[in-house]
Amino acid sequence: MSLAEQVLEGNIRAAARLMRDIDDSRPQAIDELKQLYTRTGGAYIIGITGPPGAGKSTLVDQLTASFRGRGKKVGVVAIDPTSPFTGGAILGDRIRMNRHSCDEGVFIRSLATRGALGGLSRSTSDVALVMDALGMDIVIIETVGVGQDEVDIVKEAHTTCVVMVPGLGDDIQAIKAGILEIGDIFVVNKADRDGADRTARELNTMLEMRHALEGSWSPQVMKTEAQRGTGINELTDEIMAHRDFILASGSINNFLRERNQRHFMDVLRDTLFKKALLFIANNESLDSIVTRMGDHTLDPYSAVEEIVSKIMPDADDRDKV
Amino acid sequence: MSLAEQVLEGNIRAAARLMRDIDDSRPQAIDELKQLYTRTGGAYIIGITGPPGAGKSTLVDQLTASFRGRGKKVGVVAIDPTSPFTGGAILGDRIRMNRHSCDEGVFIRSLATRGALGGLSRSTSDVALVMDALGMDIVIIETVGVGQDEVDIVKEAHTTCVVMVPGLGDDIQAIKAGILEIGDIFVVNKADRDGADRTARELNTMLEMRHALEGSWSPQVMKTEAQRGTGINELTDEIMAHRDFILASGSINNFLRERNQRHFMDVLRDTLFKKALLFIANNESLDSIVTRMGDHTLDPYSAVEEIVSKIMPDADDRDKV
Repeated sequence: MSLAEQVLEGNIRAAARLMRDIDDSRPQAIDELKQLYTRTGGAYIIGITGPPGAGKSTLVDQLTASFRGRGKKVGVVAIDPTSPFTGGAILGDRIRMNRHSCDEGVFIRSLATRGALGGLSRSTSDVALVMDALGMDIVIIETVGVGQDEVDIVKEAHTTCVVMVPGLGDDIQAIKAGILEIGDIFVVNKADRDGADRTARELNTMLEMRHALEGSWSPQVMKTEAQRGTGINELTDEIMAHRDFILASGSINNFLRERNQRHFMDVLRDTLFKKALLFIANNESLDSIVTRMGDHTLDPYSAVEEIVSKIMPDADDRDKV
Repeated sequence: MSLAEQVLEGNIRAAARLMRDIDDSRPQAIDELKQLYTRTGGAYIIGITGPPGAGKSTLVDQLTASFRGRGKKVGVVAIDPTSPFTGGAILGDRIRMNRHSCDEGVFIRSLATRGALGGLSRSTSDVALVMDALGMDIVIIETVGVGQDEVDIVKEAHTTCVVMVPGLGDDIQAIKAGILEIGDIFVVNKADRDGADRTARELNTMLEMRHALEGSWSPQVMKTEAQRGTGINELTDEIMAHRDFILASGSINNFLRERNQRHFMDVLRDTLFKKALLFIANNESLDSIVTRMGDHTLDPYSAVEEIVSKIMPDADDRDKV
């Protein structure tokens, strides 16, 4: 039985193995994913993002418990900042919430932000796909809300919760403005802290301006104290309300089209690049290209044009057909 | 006279125009960059990175003044977090330091972290190239030190300064560990704050472990108060000391080879993808691919295989030659 078939039967070990293969970019993982793809689409994906220090992990832990209490199986994909030196995740699964570790209805997986190859959002969506195939009703993706990679990841989610926290300083305001537009729900966590009401008020003001421009779904600002579990039930309700809204309004269709197109583009870019590297390895001397660039006798643009004209000799002609 | 030639003569307006063309990904910018490439390499590039709120902009402002005082021309490329909604930079040039605005020896440019196309580090290096061609002796690249994109940007710099600040909370420790390995110099800014000595001590301990592993350059932890200008002169000295070290030890050669190879790879990936999109636009229906993916009758991997076999029909055969 293939790994994919085992995953579809709910085999957790098979799922873990497939995720490891995805993480290691093993070619055989792609064959398994192909099998899974046509038999998934059932899981509801929730993105949790926000600046470092906002208490996202604790919030995700509480949301997991809340969805479990409602009879849902929950998968969690936590994106950890990677050490660019070692290539490994800085926070591993080990230090993540252990209270769900005996619960077969919870599956937690950490991913490291390692690859520059546009690979992070792709492997995130692949891991979410495996969780979907495994029968998880809810998949929560947790990521630090800074940087383009992280924004791309959040685009995978049906519902995105942006977590803010009072009093993180001025620069944070800029990030806030950046992620303001990607949130379906806003959470002011650590709401017992000074300034929580002000943060919530500021968010509401900014959101009113946004809502006036767009119409449709009107994002709410929720207050939580994840540490104590305060406000979690209300947040879960609001997430389900957003789900109901996108289903009823049909806006989920646009969302899915955009997501599928992005998946296609990501795989396309990656595949072309890998093929080209293989071609270069077999036919050209990368070393001599780099040496000539070092002498400043060859620029990278001319070097690439030369290579591409060999790999895709007819592409330009065919464009004209 | 071409834009490139005007830039090489020190024409600031031409440089600004070329940077705008780079930003807008205009094809003609590439022809200009080709001309510049073989006539650059003189500028020394300094990367400044660290978490939001560390006071990087003020520090860059002070470093600019310091290098000006030493008779150097200074270019600054500031990477601003982008609003994913509007596509624009959140902090524009306008709110950046104005005290150098009448100084012809200073050229400041903000770049937005807009493109997912691996484009940020590439356009950063292209903008740095234009500043080099314009005759800037020093180019400072300032970026928020979170996320893979930002780490990639810092790899452009000959000397990377990682800016920390006391008391930003626990999660910051994780980021600290992530950027620990990419710093040549560490700066504890806002050193008048509580906990500055502790932060410096912790950094020193972690760095001693790193140094023991690697040998060679031994990164120092510098304390600054950028707001008052304290410690800036010493930081400038340390940057120049690192420069002397990489020149004397020859480690600059490895650095340049890696950088050139990365530039080549970036341009290659981007060019292949653009060509493929053009091919699809002229020959296939992206719409029908996405629709079949939406029905879950086609997976993205099979869809890409089909397309790539048309664009690079012979690549596999040729690999075997």
